[in-house]
Order: sequence, then structure tokens, then C-alpha cells
Amino acid sequence: MEKSILEKIRSEYKPKLPQALKGNVKAVEGEPTNSVRDQQIIKSLFPNTYGMPIVRFEPGEETTHHAINVGVILSGGQAPGGHNVISGLFDEIKRLNPENRLFGFLLGPGGLVSHEYMEITSEIIEDYRNTGGFDIIGSGRTKLETEEQFEKGLQILNKLDIKALVIIGGDDSNTNAAVLAEYYKDHGDGIQVIGVPKTIDGDLKNDQIETSFGFDTATKTYSELIGNIERDCASAQKYWHFVKLMGRSASHIALECALQCHPNVCIVSEEVQANDDSLNDIVDYIAGIVANRAAHGMNYGVVLIPEGLIEFIPAIGRLISELNDLLAEHGDEYKHLDKAEQRRYILEHLSKDNANTFETLPYDVARQLSLERDPHGNVQVSSIETDKLLSRMVAAKLRLWKEEGKFKGHFHTQHHFFGYEGRCAIPSNFDADYCYALGTSAAQLIANGKTGYMAVVKNTTAPTDEWRAGGVPITSMLNLERRNGQLKPVIKKALVDLNGRPFQEYKRHRDEWAAMTCFVYPGPIQYFGPAEVCDTTTITLQLEHQ
Amino acid sequence: MEKSILEKIRSEYKPKLPQALKGNVKAVEGEPTNSVRDQQIIKSLFPNTYGMPIVRFEPGEETTHHAINVGVILSGGQAPGGHNVISGLFDEIKRLNPENRLFGFLLGPGGLVSHEYMEITSEIIEDYRNTGGFDIIGSGRTKLETEEQFEKGLQILNKLDIKALVIIGGDDSNTNAAVLAEYYKDHGDGIQVIGVPKTIDGDLKNDQIETSFGFDTATKTYSELIGNIERDCASAQKYWHFVKLMGRSASHIALECALQCHPNVCIVSEEVQANDDSLNDIVDYIAGIVANRAAHGMNYGVVLIPEGLIEFIPAIGRLISELNDLLAEHGDEYKHLDKAEQRRYILEHLSKDNANTFETLPYDVARQLSLERDPHGNVQVSSIETDKLLSRMVAAKLRLWKEEGKFKGHFHTQHHFFGYEGRCAIPSNFDADYCYALGTSAAQLIANGKTGYMAVVKNTTAPTDEWRAGGVPITSMLNLERRNGQLKPVIKKALVDLNGRPFQEYKRHRDEWAAMTCFVYPGPIQYFGPAEVCDTTTITLQLEHQ
Repeated sequence: MEKSILEKIRSEYKPKLPQALKGNVKAVEGEPTNSVRDQQIIKSLFPNTYGMPIVRFEPGEETTHHAINVGVILSGGQAPGGHNVISGLFDEIKRLNPENRLFGFLLGPGGLVSHEYMEITSEIIEDYRNTGGFDIIGSGRTKLETEEQFEKGLQILNKLDIKALVIIGGDDSNTNAAVLAEYYKDHGDGIQVIGVPKTIDGDLKNDQIETSFGFDTATKTYSELIGNIERDCASAQKYWHFVKLMGRSASHIALECALQCHPNVCIVSEEVQANDDSLNDIVDYIAGIVANRAAHGMNYGVVLIPEGLIEFIPAIGRLISELNDLLAEHGDEYKHLDKAEQRRYILEHLSKDNANTFETLPYDVARQLSLERDPHGNVQVSSIETDKLLSRMVAAKLRLWKEEGKFKGHFHTQHHFFGYEGRCAIPSNFDADYCYALGTSAAQLIANGKTGYMAVVKNTTAPTDEWRAGGVPITSMLNLERRNGQLKPVIKKALVDLNGRPFQEYKRHRDEWAAMTCFVYPGPIQYFGPAEVCDTTTITLQLEHQ
Repeated sequence: MEKSILEKIRSEYKPKLPQALKGNVKAVEGEPTNSVRDQQIIKSLFPNTYGMPIVRFEPGEETTHHAINVGVILSGGQAPGGHNVISGLFDEIKRLNPENRLFGFLLGPGGLVSHEYMEITSEIIEDYRNTGGFDIIGSGRTKLETEEQFEKGLQILNKLDIKALVIIGGDDSNTNAAVLAEYYKDHGDGIQVIGVPKTIDGDLKNDQIETSFGFDTATKTYSELIGNIERDCASAQKYWHFVKLMGRSASHIALECALQCHPNVCIVSEEVQANDDSLNDIVDYIAGIVANRAAHGMNYGVVLIPEGLIEFIPAIGRLISELNDLLAEHGDEYKHLDKAEQRRYILEHLSKDNANTFETLPYDVARQLSLERDPHGNVQVSSIETDKLLSRMVAAKLRLWKEEGKFKGHFHTQHHFFGYEGRCAIPSNFDADYCYALGTSAAQLIANGKTGYMAVVKNTTAPTDEWRAGGVPITSMLNLERRNGQLKPVIKKALVDLNGRPFQEYKRHRDEWAAMTCFVYPGPIQYFGPAEVCDTTTITLQLEHQ
């Protein structure tokens, strides 16, 4: 594997660990936990792993550990730092007992079921320290949900004598880790399951998880690009740039980028939903800002749009929800129809209100909503060109306003979608340290005999020394939600809190940012140089922990 | 103006200067020059500025300089480092005489004609040192071509008592600088005109110009993104990413990014043209690589496509060329027709061969070729979605091959277009130094009474100390080319040299990069840290000057 110069030098970076994880560790247990909601039902679903205490790591005495084998899986979309979770895990299990071995299952949870794996040796791990990507073992989106999968997994775990499995994933994957932990405990299989909170989307976050790993690096990378575009925009003064940002279920990425770059517009899906805004309301809002800037001679600007916006517009959300159920139920007969038949089929089967909404959508958007679902049964929103949809509708509105004399200017657009550009970036110092500490914590949870826990690291806005590491029972994060038409125990997604400091900070400034040009240009992630440039984390995290 | 943390710290960076520009300077003149071609005609068009010698700067004695006012213009697309050209120019004219003043014309050459300007003071310049963008005075694409414009310009230059004008631009803008220099000299207006070679495209390059500024930073920014996408691609192993890269007239950007990132495919327009490849040949080539990788279990990869490709495909090039002339001649009657009428109009007016090519193109591509021209009379190729066109045609080919049993795999695609993301990035150390030296050289050309010169800095792969600064008569770079149906003196564009080291290096490796996965992940530009990370310039420049 040929490395770039930066990667070669970066491979020598030694991630900084919290004080408690620097040597021998003892696990201190707190009070028993409850799930965030629906306690009785969750408890009945997880009789063996419900109510366990939160665990905190503190410096401890040297103890001896029997040699064990550990498995690790990367699940779902890539996030910067995954390789450091694995190297933290590797280093710590080797420190605990050099005979310990680490096996990686290939291309996601599917590798556990299909028995595709490799041993991760020290030669291999050296190639991946402080690098981006999940390519050390690959990732995938197979969901571990069925007993058949669990049993298939058990075969290979037993064959490899693996006693603990670490699943690095987002909210769904960690939910499944909890189910798997419960299953293996219930069946007396003696296999521990530990989760690690990953997602660039930032929506796996709660009282116990300050941030999911990758959010820091990904938002910095997107902010670099948005800043560059803003500067181009302010230099040429001729385009409105519409930037769609990855993040299906929440607007944390768009909000963080807005706080970093001060664009003229940032749509926050959660606010659209709370205000019961229609697509037309959003178009009016953007067109109003365009017209106002034009009146002051500024026919340019930058608009940030969260990828998931369309699902948060209540009328469209209701439509999509019914479509999801409809396609889950009738997918097989539906998928053999041609385009026109599919449209007719949908209109015939939808309830009246939703059929109306469907009919009023631009034809191609309606079409995109009718396409194949992802493995979770959801619309593949990233294929909906929300940025182009909005800019086209804004242009139509402005033409109308021009006729009415309410808009004097011009409106030329450029479109961008940033997602893949940031998911595999070389992890920032923050993510490099945070992930290494998460991997180390996961190893310690294993060493302390825990299962059904997620590794956590807290106090992350303080210097690394003062970070607090530990574990949290995943069951304590669960509640019941409707998925594919069924109530299921899942980790509650963290949406943008409209009363939280990050959104309030944005709200306080947005009118000024819209009317004036207040662009800020963050530039690329720096790995060397002054600490204020290299070691500062996201504005979101800083504001939330002020 | 609120600065990011990186910008604040970066503002203190002191660009490194070549030895000869560190103090007092003397200009050493070489032999008289000739234009690269068409000498007699060029000489007759530039009687006052033809044949001037190349100028080299060397350390000199202190001399006194009368106070003068200088004007500066940023012309055309943004390129990282423009602000450093201006700060180098500013610092040097102030060093020569603190009474010297610098005026910037706003939003490009148009500001000279419309008399919109501002004085650039030391307070202002402090805000822009080592930053990206052209926003200090803005940029624009107005072409300075007519005597009326020259005379309008003269009015404001005389009013502000400006004795020298620096035009920072690409090949066209520098051509116009030469025409303006000749005009002002011919009319005895006593105004010097100096050009500075700018363009991220890398196509303003010849014996005298090693590289145009901005190419280094822009290609590093694109390579960062391509590397991140490659890593995502290798981790998820499920998509073919088609990446279109800015660069209308030459493939230097795509080639440099290929040398940095080792993608599976990089189309080089100049090779397509040399081989007389058809669109179908290119599709076959890509589909062949996809099918071969699929046969080895790799249903993923990365393809780089230069933005200007479509114009280089000979059959399409001939079509576009006739369309350009047709629309230049009949644009007024044409533009009032509706879509269907325009198509009919074009088919009726084209020669038979070109009409055939037009008819065989996908409908939307044919349509895009028929749209409005840019101010230079060229197709706006950046609006042609070449990436999607190619991936769609590759998909069609693979479906065919699948039926024939020649393709066993799947082909899912993602598309990206990188241009605006890199044009205003914070300049790399190389561009920061190079631009500052160019600005300093421009000031010295003025101080030495030169006009019709371009500032140049050479030996740029050596340490900065050893760089050689000077000036080259723009007329020496001119030849005659057909533009908008007329023969005009223009600077010869530097296309990718198929016998040159950069292309040969790519050619040597491309089959391996296609068949295997040899991705390299360069990561973001670093401004601090080890010199090998921060101070290395492009692979293109290194290979060309080996």
C-alpha cells in the first residue's frame, strides 16, 4: 500500500489518552440504569441486559488476564477514525495480554454471517494508524436482526474461539449490538458484545454520548469546502451556491457547518418540522433573502441544505411514511410495473391527503420518492436532488416576483453535494484521540466482563488528560419506535434541539448572515502547528458543553 | 471581516522570496525575443512592444524612485494566491517609495472601463495576506479589447495619476494586456502594463512560465477530495465514482490529480484528440476496466474526467466549432426560437457530417451544446454533465455485455464535480511564496520602466532562495489562432504534452492502477509541520523539471 507523504508522517502520531486509560484500569460501577422510555417493555425484551450500571474507568492495579480472542465489525457508513478505534482496541488487548488476538469480519456485519474474516496483526495495524476509511476490513450495511444470523455468527465465533465482539456503528447497529448481546447472554453462549458510537451525522448523542466519532473531521472537511465556495462566491459575485450536505435523519452537520462558515441561508430540518412549514414556505424564505440581497446589489450567496430535509416537511413526511409502508407491503407486485403504472398504482393506493401531496410535487421528485427503499425500508433521500429542487422552485418564485416588481436582480445557481468527500478524511487530532480512547475503553469493557455496553468517552471539550472513559448499557438508551410498520426497541436518534445552544446561536445570527456577507473561511484540517488550529473540536460540542 | 482561527494564524506567514528580490534589485536584459510563431504578423501588430528582451533580476544598488501610482486588476476565474500577488506588489512599491500608491479596479477589467476602483491601503492589505479568493477587489470576465475600452480606462488612469497597470489573469487576459500595452505605448500615454500568469488550469505555461499560480493549491485541494472519495470507495466497495474536474482547455488538473491519487481511470483529453477517439471509444475503454475489475470481484472504482473532454473528441470538436461560428453569426435570430425550433434550425444549418454527429448525441447533450456561449464565444462546457453522460453510456454498454456474458457484476455510480471547491482555497506555501514573488517582480518591472511584460519566477522546484525572478515580453508568447471566426494574436495555450514526463509517468502506471486498487490518499494541504508535507509542489512541476 503506497502512502502519501502526509499519511507517512501522520502514522507516527501517538493518540493522546485520558489519564485513566494510560495504564492499568479499574472499572467503577454506578447505579443501575433504566431505558429512556417504555421501561417495562424494554425490560421484558432484554431480561438479561436491562438495568446494568454505568461503568467508569479509573487508574487501577495490575491484574492478570487470561488470553482471549476478540472480533471486530465496522458497520454502516464510513466515519473518520474507525481505524483508530481498531488500533486502540488492538493495542489495549495486546497490553492486557500479548497472547490476545483480534479478528476482523469483512465488509460489515455480513462478514460475521458469511464467515469472512481476517486476523488483524500488528503488521497490518501499523498500516492503518491515524488513517481515514474503513478499508482495513471494509464495512457494510447488513443488519444483524435474525436468530439465524446470530446462530451463523456464533458458529464462526466459536470456531475462532472469540469471546467478545466489538461492533462499531451508528444507532441501528448499536441497537442490534444490544439485541445480539441479550441473545448470546440468554443462550449462555458466553460471548460479550460491545458497541462503539460512530456516525458523521452526529445523531447518536445523548446524556452519555457527547458526540459520535467522525462528526468532527467530516464537518471540518465540509466546512473547508463550503468556506472555499463562499470565498469564490464573494469574489465572483455572480452565483447562488446551493450546497446539500449529508445527514439523512438530523441537521447537525448543516448546523455545524453554518456555525463555522456563516452562510446566507441554512435550512434546519427540525425547525421546518416544528413550524409545520411547507415546501413553499421554505422556497418563500430563501427567495425573500435572495430578493433582499439583490436589492442591495448582492446577486450571490450560499445556501446550506440538509440531505434529509424533504422527509422533515410534514406533508411530505406523511406521504413518505405511507409510501414506505405501502412499498414494504406491496413491493413485489409494484416493482414489476413500468413508470407510468407505478405512478398510477401509488395514486390509487395512497390516502386522499397524501395522494394530493404526491400529485402536487414536481414529477421527477415524486418519481424519486417512489423508488427502491434502502435495507432499512427508507427512501434513499441522498438520491433526491433537494438542492436542485429548491433552487428551481426559488427561481420560479423570483420570476413571479420580478413580474410584480418585487425582485430586481439576477439569480444564477451552482449546486454541490458533499458527503463522500468527508466520510473517509484523515481523522483530525480530536477524532484520532477520541477514537483511540473509545477502542481502548471497548477493550477494558471486555476485560471487565461486560456485555451489551457501549464504550463512551466524556468531558471531551477539556484537555485529553481529563477525558472520562467508561461504558454505558445500551438498553438504557432504548425506546420503542415504529420501523417498517412495526414497533421496535431502538436507540433514540438525537435530532437538533431547537432550544439547544447550537441552534440558538445560529438563530441569533442568521438574519445578519442573510442580509450581509459574513462568510468565514475555516480552511483545511491541520494536523501540525498551533494547538488552537489543530486541537479545537466542533462549535456544536463546545456550545453544548459550555 | 471575521477570520477563522487558521486564517488568523496564517496571516502572520511571511512568504519566502528569491534571493534576488530580497533587497535592492537590478534588471539585467537578455537578447531580443521573437514570438513563438507568425513572427511577421505579430511584429506588425505590435510595432512598439515586439522583440523586447527577457529581463532577469539580480541583487543591485540602492536607487531612488519617483513616487508613482499603480493600478491592479484581477481578471477571470479565481486562483489561490491572487491576494499574495497584490500584497507582494504592494509591499515592493512601498519599499521602493513609501509615497507610491496602489489602486484596485473592482470586479475585474470591467472596473477599469466603468471607473470603479478603491485604494488598497496597508490596513486593507493586512486583512488579505495569505488568504484565498479574489475578494479584496473582486474579479470579472470583461475582456479589454476595444479602443473605446482602452480610452475609457485611460481617463480614470490619468485621473488617478496611475502610471502602471498590473493585470493578473490567464492567457486571454495576458494577451489583452499585451494589446493594451501596445496601444498605450503607441499613443504615447506613458502607461505601463504588466501581466501576471494566473490560472488553476495550468495551461498558461511555456519555456518562460514554469507554472501558473493557483494550480498547486487547487490540484492539492481536488486531490484531497479525490483521495477521500477513493478511500470511501475502497471501504464500501459498492460504487464507481465519476469525478469531473475543472479545466476547460487542457487536462493538466486531471493528470496531476491522477499522479497524486492513482485512480482506476483518468481520461486525458489531449490523448483522446491525438488518437481520434470517438465518444464510443472512451465508453468502451471505461467499460472494459469496469468489467475486468468486476471479474476480479471489485465492483468499484474511481474515474477522473476533465471538464473539457467533450470538446476534444474530434467529431464533437468539429461540431462544436461549427456551432460556435453558427451561433456567433446567427445568435440573434436563433435565440428567440423555442427548443424544438432551435434544434431544427441547427440541423438545417450544419454541414452534413456535423449534423450527423449532432443527431447521434443523447438529446440533452445536444441541447447543452446548443445553449448560450460564454463571453469568449465558447460552449459553457462546465454545464455539460460529461460525468453523467459517460457513466450512463458505460452502464448501457455493460448491460449489453451482461447479456453477452462479458460482464458479471454490478455497476452503481456516484458523481462529483470539483471546481469551485479549489479555486479560492487558502494558498499552499508554494502558491503563497510564488505569488508574493510574482507581485514583487511585477513591481520591479514597473520600477524598471517595462511595459508589455509578464512577471515570471523560475527554477521553482529548487528552494525559494534559488528561484529566479524576471520578466518576459508577452509578445514573445503570441501566435495567431482562430477565435470567434477570426484570426487573432493570442498566447498559445499549453496542452498536456503526450511526450512529456507527467503524461508518460501516468501512462506507465495506468494499466496497473486500473486493474488493481492502488489508491493514494494525499489528505488536506498542510501549512505547518515538516517541510516535505508543507513545501512540496505538484508532481507535474517536479517531473517537468527533473
